[in-house]
This record gives sequence, structure tokens and C-alpha cells, in this order.
Amino acid sequence: MPEPIEDFYAVIPAGGIGSRLWPLSRADAPKFLHDLTGSGQTLLRDTWDRLAPLSGPDRIAVVTGRAHRAAVERELPELADLNVILESEPRDSAAAIGLAAAILSRREPEVIIGSFAADHVIRGTRTFEFAVQQAVAVAREGYICTIGIPPTEPSVGFGYIKKGGELPVDGAPEAASVERFVEKPDLETAREYYGDRSYMWNAGMFISRADVLLGEIAENQPELYAGLMELAEVWDDRDARGPVVDRVWPTLTKIAIDYAVAEPAAEKGRLAVIPGHFDWDDVGDFASLAKLNSGGRKENLAILGANARVLADASSGIVVSQTARVISVIGVKDIVIVDTADALLVTTSEHAQRVKGVVDALKLTGRGDVL
Amino acid sequence: MPEPIEDFYAVIPAGGIGSRLWPLSRADAPKFLHDLTGSGQTLLRDTWDRLAPLSGPDRIAVVTGRAHRAAVERELPELADLNVILESEPRDSAAAIGLAAAILSRREPEVIIGSFAADHVIRGTRTFEFAVQQAVAVAREGYICTIGIPPTEPSVGFGYIKKGGELPVDGAPEAASVERFVEKPDLETAREYYGDRSYMWNAGMFISRADVLLGEIAENQPELYAGLMELAEVWDDRDARGPVVDRVWPTLTKIAIDYAVAEPAAEKGRLAVIPGHFDWDDVGDFASLAKLNSGGRKENLAILGANARVLADASSGIVVSQTARVISVIGVKDIVIVDTADALLVTTSEHAQRVKGVVDALKLTGRGDVL
Repeated sequence: MPEPIEDFYAVIPAGGIGSRLWPLSRADAPKFLHDLTGSGQTLLRDTWDRLAPLSGPDRIAVVTGRAHRAAVERELPELADLNVILESEPRDSAAAIGLAAAILSRREPEVIIGSFAADHVIRGTRTFEFAVQQAVAVAREGYICTIGIPPTEPSVGFGYIKKGGELPVDGAPEAASVERFVEKPDLETAREYYGDRSYMWNAGMFISRADVLLGEIAENQPELYAGLMELAEVWDDRDARGPVVDRVWPTLTKIAIDYAVAEPAAEKGRLAVIPGHFDWDDVGDFASLAKLNSGGRKENLAILGANARVLADASSGIVVSQTARVISVIGVKDIVIVDTADALLVTTSEHAQRVKGVVDALKLTGRGDVL
Repeated sequence: MPEPIEDFYAVIPAGGIGSRLWPLSRADAPKFLHDLTGSGQTLLRDTWDRLAPLSGPDRIAVVTGRAHRAAVERELPELADLNVILESEPRDSAAAIGLAAAILSRREPEVIIGSFAADHVIRGTRTFEFAVQQAVAVAREGYICTIGIPPTEPSVGFGYIKKGGELPVDGAPEAASVERFVEKPDLETAREYYGDRSYMWNAGMFISRADVLLGEIAENQPELYAGLMELAEVWDDRDARGPVVDRVWPTLTKIAIDYAVAEPAAEKGRLAVIPGHFDWDDVGDFASLAKLNSGGRKENLAILGANARVLADASSGIVVSQTARVISVIGVKDIVIVDTADALLVTTSEHAQRVKGVVDALKLTGRGDVL
């Protein structure tokens, strides 16, 4: 175990539902509250356990919605009240991470924050820690530092980070500047990037001084910045906070941190990257989930669910069982079966991305009770 | 509506569970107790409604297991006590139909019985009635008469009846003798039969004088015959029946009526056939069920279940819903999804025949609670 990094504070935005994993993920049971790897604990808990050695357990803030507060606190009994940042309603990632930065910066002006999604899967503790340690060193130099994932396939599901020249930073032998941020590419482009090796996946990990991050928001999204400052000013004053939150929160600009911070910072040469040589998966859909749980063998049928009773014959793909029902699967390939108390999904890996469309259709057709 | 046929008695063996339709059909909810066509009533009730105009409602006997007595009587409130023939345990069709023949023959020596499965689907009332009327006329001449179904495809799922020469019988213009009975053929042979047109599907319908049927059993299965006679002798004597049933029932030879009666009768020129020009389906597996409910269009997704909540996209096959769950189906072709309270089946039309194997596997692995 490493010593905690003195000036480092971890931030976990725990907001997204993960609609493409419906009916497993849903409003009252978002993706980060599930065990998607059979580890026996939730992704949120995994994230906490990964960060606590780096920051210390008293220096992890969780940004989450009111609806999930109880569940989050159940998962993380060590989480101090001070470290729970409640969102009145979701306003996207720049608001969530920016608010954490603003609050922590008032408390501790020199603090370096690192934000890490609550619902990604990472394997390789030591490599992860080494990457974060390097990123913190780079952040101390005033950069906004990302951790990019060297691609293991030409994925069209992620944004890419194009690495620029090396950055000479003590304690960060792998540091490089970022030339630019790229949106999810088409397959041909993804293949190019994959061959090039100077492109890395954007895994949504940002490490920087809180004040540097806020400066970037101030430059690019001045209205959002003003709102965040107003909120931060009263945040630690219980009596004053309520009315300000009620007034300001609904006005916060809804924008992803990639657009509000990372892209413009890259253009101005203020973005750096450290390669993350650990296994990383955002478990974006059931195809990813199947892959993650099939031991890498495409002909396997992965089974997820502590009490799963599955009888399979000549089948591959994944069965997610949240009920005690016997599930019999015969002669279906690359199948995705998700069995929950009130909803059942049957599709294939190939169509896994279309699950989000179902969620939209259920809303539109008045069947939102199962979302 | 025709006048009931005076000397005719209908017999409905309601025994088989229909394992290939698991988890829809099961020990406590056999196939004949399901609505498989969306008609709003069970196959057993459909069978009754089809036969009652031909025999009169007081002249239909149902042979069923003790476990299903209550359900059968709920479905058929008109069914008189006298017409319930309870099996202590299943001993196959020769015993079931033979016992009905023996009991009815004692009550009414000249009676003509017609046995019709409780769980087949027939469409075309007038054609069905015409076939039965002809078959009864043939039976009066001392033949055992079947109703054969002219094939609409080269099926390997049924046995075949090879038609011989015409039989000159008054009131039965389509009567023919049967040259032989054939087991389920391979595909090549089925194609030959299909082209030949003198082969018909064996739909398990037998119409004959009760004493003629019993004579055939006596010749071919003398031990079974002796047991049936012993049972019939005491059947209508409530006090005497019990001990005889307990002693004799377990000794009855287990054999299908096809082997005990139809095949040997055909060899001896005692079997006749009337073509049934109605739509007939034994709904042998989920592939048949899908076809039956898809309006004949292979690209359709058939949905069965009064309270089904199915959201489908680019899918075909069948969804059978017995729960109130939302079922979402995306991009799966020829799929079979059967959703019940305690068991879920996912397979394809192609593998529908393998469902029986699952039932066997569940028994072997101690999960018989869902059978």
C-alpha cells in the first residue's frame, strides 16, 4: 500500500444511471450500485477501495443525487458527511466536478483533485496507483492531467486523446502533453488510431489543482463558474446553503467536463496525459459486460448473479439473473438475457447499444414504472 | 349445428403434460389446460366444444389423472361424474382409451367411441364434423377408423398413414382402407410422402365400436385386455372399485394405442381412414406454437399471454408471457421466450425440440420444483 498523497483529494461523481444496462441499471439502482464483475461488491465500493490508499479515506468526496444518498452511505460507511456533495438534480459532469473543485478549493486552496467515475472497472492496482501518482506530479506543475488508456482494440465506443510531445516533470516519467481531444470516431478512423499508438482512450479521469480546473471553467463557461462560486461560498454554512442551492442549481449550465474543460485546455496546451497501463472498462453496454465476464472466451456463456440458476446448452453471451428463477438457455449465440423482478431483456451483443432506445420507448409509452 | 350422433360417445384422453412446451406446460399446468391460440379458452375446452355437438354433452368421457380432476371439472362444468375416468397413474394411451372402451362397452354394448386428444388445435368445424360423421359410418361396419390429415408440408414430426383402396361405405364417401402405419420418417422420406399424396399424418384420432377396439387389444395385448376387463367389471360399483384399481392398475401394460391397436389392425386390413380437411396442429413444440400464432408470417413476433407487456424491435419468433413483467426483445430472430413466474426459457425455433432435454436435465439436477 502506498502512503496517501498529502495534497490529493479524490472525487467520485456517482450520478449516471447507465441506461444501456437497463433493466439491470435503473433510476433506483444505477450502474455504480451493481456488482458487474462477480467480485461480491459494487462498482462504487471498488472505486472507493482503489482510491482510498492514494488519498486516505477521509479525503474522498462523492458527488451524487439525493435519491442515492442512502445507498451510497450504505456502500461507503467510512464516507464523512463533509464529503457527501448532494446534487439537487443532475446537471452533467462539469457542474458535478466543478462544484467539488469549488468547495474543496475554498477549504484548501492548494488541493489537487482527481475525479474518477464511480462505475468503471479497473484491474491492476499498482499500475493504477503509479498512473495517479504521476498525474498528481504533473498537476502540481499547473497542468490538467488525464489518464489515457492505450487501446487494446479499434473501439468506436470511446473518445480518444492524441498524445503530443513528452513533458519533463519530476516523478512523472511517462508524462506527455495532449495535442487534441477526439470524439468517438468511425470504425475506419478507430483502426487508424489503433495502428498509430499515439491515440489513447479517454477514460474520463482528470487530475488537476482545483483552482486550475476552476480557472479553465471560468474562461470557457463563465456563467457556470459564477454559479459554482455562489454555491461553494455558502456550501459549508448549513443555514445559508438551502436557499442558494434552490435558486442557483437549476441555472447551472449542463455540459460535460470534456467540452467545458478538457477540449479547450488541450487547445491551449494546458492538458497533459499519463498512460494507464491497467485493464480498464467502462462497461458501456451488455456486450462489454459479456466480454468482461466470459473469461475472454467468446464461446462462453457468462453468468452474473449471486443466486443465478442457469441451465445452458450450446449457448454463448451473457445471462444476468436478479431473480431466483430457473433460466434455461438453448442454442442461442451471443445472447444477452437480463432477468429482473419486473422486466426482462432479450437481445444480442450486436444490438446491445440499442437498449438505450428501449428505455426511451418505455418512457414514451407510459411504462416508466420499470425504469 | 348437427344433430348428435345417437350411438356415438366421445373420449378425451387428457393426460400428457407436453414437456416440449416447458416451462409453459408442466405437471400442475399441462398443455391441455392452456390457451395456446389466444382464443380465450383452454385447448381442453376447445376440444369439448368441438365434440359436444357430435356426441351431445352427456356423452363425452374424459380420461385424466387424479391431480388434474379439479382443473378439468372447472373447465368443463357440464362434465358428469359418470364421464370422469380417473387414472391412478399414467399407463399410456392404450390403457387410457382401452379402459374408456371397456367401461362404455359394459354400459352400452353397441356404442361407437371416438377418441380425440385434449391438446390439439383444430380449425374448421364443419369439415371436422363431416370427417367424424364419415368415420362413425365406417366404424359401424366394424372397422377401426382413423382421421388422417393430408400433409401441408414434409413434416418429420408426425407418424404417417398410408392410404390403400377405397372403401364403399354408405355415408362415408371418402373412406379408404389403410395399407400401413409409418413411424416418424426422416426428411427425405417425408418429402417422398409429401409428393405422393397417399400418405396422411396420424393425428391420433380413432373411431370404432368399443367392442371392436377391445377385440383388437385382446388379440395383440391379452394381458392388458384382461386388466382392463377386470377394472371395467367393477368400475361402476363404487364400493368394489378401489381395491381392484389398486391391485390391477399398476400391472397394466404401458403401450401406445398406435402399437397396441392401429398398426396390427392395419396389417390385418381392419383399419380405415377418412381424410380430415381441417387445419390441424398438435402444437408439439414452441416452433409450432410460434407458427400457429404468427399469422403465418415468419417475420412476425407472435405474442401469447393475456397480460403480455412486450416491447419488440426487429425481432421474430414467439414470446409467451405468464407474468406482468415488461419484456423487451431487440434484434433476435426466430427466438422463443417463455416467461413464467419461476422459470424462463430462451431458445430458437430451430432448437425447440431440445426443450424436452432440459426437462430431463432439470429432473436429474434436482431442480424438479419448476417442472
